[in-house]
Amino acid sequence: MSLRLIPGGRPRDAEGLLVTGASEVVTMAGGLRAGARQADAGILDAAAMGGLGTAGAPIVACWGERIVAVGPRDAVEQRLEAEGLPLERFGRLDAGGGVVTPGLIDPHTHLLFAGTREHEVSLRQAGAGYLEILAAGGGILATVAATRAASAEKLARHGRRWLDEILTHGVTTIEAKSGYGLDLATELRLLEVAFQLGREGPIDILPTYLGAHAVPPEFRSRPDGSEAYVRSILEEQLPGVAAQGRARFCDVFCEEGVFGADECRRILEAADKLGMAPRLHADELAPSGGAELAAEVGAVSADHLAAISDQGIAALAAAATGERPVVATLLPATSLFLMSDHYAPARRLIDEGIPLALGTDFNPGTSPTPNLPLVMAVGCLELKLSPAEALSAVTINAAHALGLGDEIGSLELGRQADLVVWGVPEAAQIPYWMGADLVRTVVKRGRIAFEHA
Amino acid sequence: MSLRLIPGGRPRDAEGLLVTGASEVVTMAGGLRAGARQADAGILDAAAMGGLGTAGAPIVACWGERIVAVGPRDAVEQRLEAEGLPLERFGRLDAGGGVVTPGLIDPHTHLLFAGTREHEVSLRQAGAGYLEILAAGGGILATVAATRAASAEKLARHGRRWLDEILTHGVTTIEAKSGYGLDLATELRLLEVAFQLGREGPIDILPTYLGAHAVPPEFRSRPDGSEAYVRSILEEQLPGVAAQGRARFCDVFCEEGVFGADECRRILEAADKLGMAPRLHADELAPSGGAELAAEVGAVSADHLAAISDQGIAALAAAATGERPVVATLLPATSLFLMSDHYAPARRLIDEGIPLALGTDFNPGTSPTPNLPLVMAVGCLELKLSPAEALSAVTINAAHALGLGDEIGSLELGRQADLVVWGVPEAAQIPYWMGADLVRTVVKRGRIAFEHA
Repeated sequence: MSLRLIPGGRPRDAEGLLVTGASEVVTMAGGLRAGARQADAGILDAAAMGGLGTAGAPIVACWGERIVAVGPRDAVEQRLEAEGLPLERFGRLDAGGGVVTPGLIDPHTHLLFAGTREHEVSLRQAGAGYLEILAAGGGILATVAATRAASAEKLARHGRRWLDEILTHGVTTIEAKSGYGLDLATELRLLEVAFQLGREGPIDILPTYLGAHAVPPEFRSRPDGSEAYVRSILEEQLPGVAAQGRARFCDVFCEEGVFGADECRRILEAADKLGMAPRLHADELAPSGGAELAAEVGAVSADHLAAISDQGIAALAAAATGERPVVATLLPATSLFLMSDHYAPARRLIDEGIPLALGTDFNPGTSPTPNLPLVMAVGCLELKLSPAEALSAVTINAAHALGLGDEIGSLELGRQADLVVWGVPEAAQIPYWMGADLVRTVVKRGRIAFEHA
Repeated sequence: MSLRLIPGGRPRDAEGLLVTGASEVVTMAGGLRAGARQADAGILDAAAMGGLGTAGAPIVACWGERIVAVGPRDAVEQRLEAEGLPLERFGRLDAGGGVVTPGLIDPHTHLLFAGTREHEVSLRQAGAGYLEILAAGGGILATVAATRAASAEKLARHGRRWLDEILTHGVTTIEAKSGYGLDLATELRLLEVAFQLGREGPIDILPTYLGAHAVPPEFRSRPDGSEAYVRSILEEQLPGVAAQGRARFCDVFCEEGVFGADECRRILEAADKLGMAPRLHADELAPSGGAELAAEVGAVSADHLAAISDQGIAALAAAATGERPVVATLLPATSLFLMSDHYAPARRLIDEGIPLALGTDFNPGTSPTPNLPLVMAVGCLELKLSPAEALSAVTINAAHALGLGDEIGSLELGRQADLVVWGVPEAAQIPYWMGADLVRTVVKRGRIAFEHA
């Protein structure tokens, strides 16, 4: 009955794809989630619609790269006929009683780097903190040295190795930051490789310029090191990055001992004028005015927030009711990996009406995990999110954290046909089977991009 | 150069397998690890032996189901020639610069059950404890009801689904407990299914009888419920399980509010006489004399120990220097999933010379993870183990926790040829890439059982 689909394609001659046999279709229809709506996943439940396999069961219809209908099978089929899209031109993907969700979106990764830092785990076990390791010339600076020495080809090989795995975790779009170059040439190399890997596909990649990730070694010995490096960002790196035209965003590490709020404001405002939308690493280790700055500059996302202050929460809550809500992108795997008891106050943020996203923070120093479903589990266990809240956080809200809320993150008419079939009968089980491989099929832009063996 | 190997086989006509191209061979040679030796993984490092691809680089030779040589390539080849095992009868498996370890061993799983309990996460978020959920008739009793209603076929389907995934995490042997029947018929069904799944392979399964997992509902309303149920274990279940002949071990849940140390002693002593070696769930939630009892009865393993007392530690430390050391099998994913701050005092146990193993505790209520490498990561982050200590804990020490220390868990002459090729250049990176899929090839009894796509 259902045609066999091959990875990378639809059945021969098929121009569309009908995803049938889902126990639940998690639509995430209706835009950004905040407050109580964070828990509304917009689920179409086959059991409540007549039962699996009936004419009332929910299906998803894709045509080309787009979703053209979502709903009960009979209604979708009528609509397709009316639109002049004959059913025989659709291939079939049988979800086999599993759950269908939008493709997951990872809104915070440091995809590209060279070298590994597993030895820092033992330093932290012995009591050293992130900033201590950094001050001793370790931490991120070790990654910077290795990354500067790495060719574009080497970085691309590394990127492909991890993108191949990231896809198997159900992720169809990621953000990827530079920030391990800290000089123009290497930052441009990182951004170019990220851009080219996105062009290769199937995962879409949004490059972010993160020159203000740390003060690089050649500036650290100077008495005016931090200010001099900020000037080099403003005068040399930002114009160069803008001329290259690959970076969609500009990010800064706003943190005590790294860059102050005033330095970050200057960088983000200059980047914004050059067409790079602002986003921030904010209040990860200590309250540093990062969340307040995010609201002030209209950032799409404020990330980490494990140490957000009351004023920071108030600023994001005010932004949430305005025209430019700032998504709070929480990264709980980082707290876990840093052996910190300090997690972002997720429930309070939800109570204050602030929309939450979740990301992996994939990076070699503080979160070497490519596994976004695992991060959802940690979000439920450590941030006390419900499964539906965690799902919103890695789909529609993560899309908004990338300025793509009208394009991806939900299964709605006209959206990009990115979706995942999961081998569980209820969406609530996705974060429950901690660290399990539940992804059965990934569809990207209407085509099968991954199938579980 | 290297023959292509197919899953389930060796190359046509090959009777042996040479595993070459490893950056490190983690041998775990030399028996049970305790104290400082927990961190000695017995690593043969190609870089220190002349370099990858040289005649001095370490290789592993398997013949039939056994390991016949481990060491520098030239020495191994000479030995094989001398033994009359000509090299042309060996297939080649190229580790591609990755790490080779013994097949991982999961010494504590509740593999077989029906139903799921994801809703308990929200109860715990709201503050309910394990014993509260149990006292309200939820928790394990929900799983017991679903499991009693499940046919052997249904349980076997469930088991195969998870065993298929467990293999991809590099696990080649597991223990599997009954304990969701709590009546003779269902306990026998669970043990029989576990046994048959092990016979199907490729993963070896050691069935454990765990009738004393909880007091079942039909006994709970009786004033003498617990004692009456213990009598039914002693008089009905144990003789029935012994007659069936599938259970290798007898386990008990020695815990405040579940079974007391005296009840557990009676059960374990009776089981021992019937040929089932004792092991215990001990001191998981409160100190209950479980560790002391483990030492007293000469258990192969005392499991959980998140709430072990000073006396319990002293008892295990004394046993560790005697003829029957008790392996402390820690289950940190359970603490994580229960949102507990209470982890077993792993460093203190190591300091006291007690050998540690790690297990998933795979079960639907308190640890729904099939991912033993993820448990290693949690062991490093929450128990403060080093990567080498965590590796010992899931190989040689886990083998001893199953009474199989002379058979599996190390890459030594005569041991079963169970091994894993990992896609990382150093063993220390296995727990570092948290939640990543690093397993490239799994060899079970000398044959390729899994290859990463």
